[in-house]
Amino acid sequence: MCDRKYAIIGTGALGGFYGAKLQKAGLDVHFLLKSDYEHVSQYGLIIESKDGDFTLPQVNAYDDVTKMPQCDVVIVALKTTQNYLLSQLLPPVMKNNGVVLVLQNGLGIEEEVAQIVGNLNVIGGLCFLCSNKVGKGHIRHLDYGQIALGEYALNYKATGITSRIQQIAYDFQNAGISIELTEDLLLARWQKLVWNIPYNGLSVILNARTDELMADSYTRQLVEQLMYEVAAGAKITGRIIADSFIQTMLDYTIKMKPYRTSMKIDYDEHRPLEVEAIFGNPLRKAQAANVFLLQISCLYNQLKFLDTRNQR
Amino acid sequence: MCDRKYAIIGTGALGGFYGAKLQKAGLDVHFLLKSDYEHVSQYGLIIESKDGDFTLPQVNAYDDVTKMPQCDVVIVALKTTQNYLLSQLLPPVMKNNGVVLVLQNGLGIEEEVAQIVGNLNVIGGLCFLCSNKVGKGHIRHLDYGQIALGEYALNYKATGITSRIQQIAYDFQNAGISIELTEDLLLARWQKLVWNIPYNGLSVILNARTDELMADSYTRQLVEQLMYEVAAGAKITGRIIADSFIQTMLDYTIKMKPYRTSMKIDYDEHRPLEVEAIFGNPLRKAQAANVFLLQISCLYNQLKFLDTRNQR
Repeated sequence: MCDRKYAIIGTGALGGFYGAKLQKAGLDVHFLLKSDYEHVSQYGLIIESKDGDFTLPQVNAYDDVTKMPQCDVVIVALKTTQNYLLSQLLPPVMKNNGVVLVLQNGLGIEEEVAQIVGNLNVIGGLCFLCSNKVGKGHIRHLDYGQIALGEYALNYKATGITSRIQQIAYDFQNAGISIELTEDLLLARWQKLVWNIPYNGLSVILNARTDELMADSYTRQLVEQLMYEVAAGAKITGRIIADSFIQTMLDYTIKMKPYRTSMKIDYDEHRPLEVEAIFGNPLRKAQAANVFLLQISCLYNQLKFLDTRNQR
Repeated sequence: MCDRKYAIIGTGALGGFYGAKLQKAGLDVHFLLKSDYEHVSQYGLIIESKDGDFTLPQVNAYDDVTKMPQCDVVIVALKTTQNYLLSQLLPPVMKNNGVVLVLQNGLGIEEEVAQIVGNLNVIGGLCFLCSNKVGKGHIRHLDYGQIALGEYALNYKATGITSRIQQIAYDFQNAGISIELTEDLLLARWQKLVWNIPYNGLSVILNARTDELMADSYTRQLVEQLMYEVAAGAKITGRIIADSFIQTMLDYTIKMKPYRTSMKIDYDEHRPLEVEAIFGNPLRKAQAANVFLLQISCLYNQLKFLDTRNQR
């Protein structure tokens, strides 16, 4: 059990952080990189973290999946805007009976990955992590860090807690990463969207932090209406989000420190936005059942416009 | 008939332009001003116009309605954001049997004015005018200029063409202002909103010109959906906007020169936005019938946020 080999597909703010923690705990971790490959091969990774800084002077770095060993757990830590690459990246690095652990935002990603590696080989994880890449191989972990892990099965059928996710959770917890096991991955994904859709979307469209959105009565109301639209989307897929959950998210955000969302950071740095994973996929799920989430759709179209212009 | 006296309540880009045209044609016009009062009293008005420049070295300028003569036609040419002043401005300047002609954007303004001067004394006009105030008493007329005139009656009952609006139309046409008479003022107002709601709203929210909104397939679609929501609002008040009208508006906008909307100009110059007249009133009309125009509502809340921040 101790010889689980991990692959990190995408060694950025998220993959670099979790991968480094796993390696530091003694696990065998293999990192796929692109632009930072040369630098990380030579100097390793630097992690500044609120839980304690550390460096890994030597890591297993690759710029090509075909050079990587086959791994038991392949962690997808790319932005979803890169997911068109997965059909080439995943097969070479996956061991027989290995699993892919999708640590990405949004909805429907596990379904896409299952098309590549099969329905029985996918696990999903939702990260509550605030970290940035501040230089080549240099990651700054600012806050949070916990992961909700859940099994994926065909059509997101809730399958409860399996032994393999318990094993992965064990590795992560040993590495100091807080894990929550969820019996219903799809519900967990919708719940995360309750926060991500209003705040990520409006922060970009209105150039605003979370505290500004909550201090204005009009955007405060729009945030709440968007949350209820997410709940309506969840209901279409058979998942119930209680009103009390929405109220908790609102209260929690009011109490949070002023926060620039991850999508706003991507926008400000002219990186592609995860509009399809976070907005487009939920909209299409609802639309397939002839339900139109009109305010989410309004944000989606606005974001698509802004994203295109921002990439020019 | 030739001795109709006109008052211009608000001598800006719109009131200054139409008032000057009327005076130039020989009519007796009285201008209410605020910040430009001293200057215009002394130097009059300068109109640069695509139809021919002219100056009026002397005009009847006032900074106080109680000093104005009572007029047959009182033209409201303020921005709707100033309409809280009307209950004080209108009564002193209105002759018995006079009428108020509301030349403002949005919906429901005639109802507000009728509360002040009575249901029988209100006429509405929709201006298709592109002009700016470029200095004190100095107006630049860039394009268009026609007005659609219609009678107001209680609850916007369509009353056909009356002789008094024909008389006013006669004065305007003599002054070189193109007039269309409409039998149904409320329909005309909804029709204008078909254009104003999507383009004014999105131009501010997305910092975009009309051509940019139409070139992107996502905002192009959002524009169209918003137009259909306006048509749904119109239907609640018993007015039918045909699909072909919407298609005409879309085609017309694609062929237009790149255009910065009037709301965007107000926003860029940190003036208050006419959000309530253009967005709030239609939403409330629909909501009173338990219909929620969700995408318009999304824009409304976004604009309220932006307007507040922009005024700080």
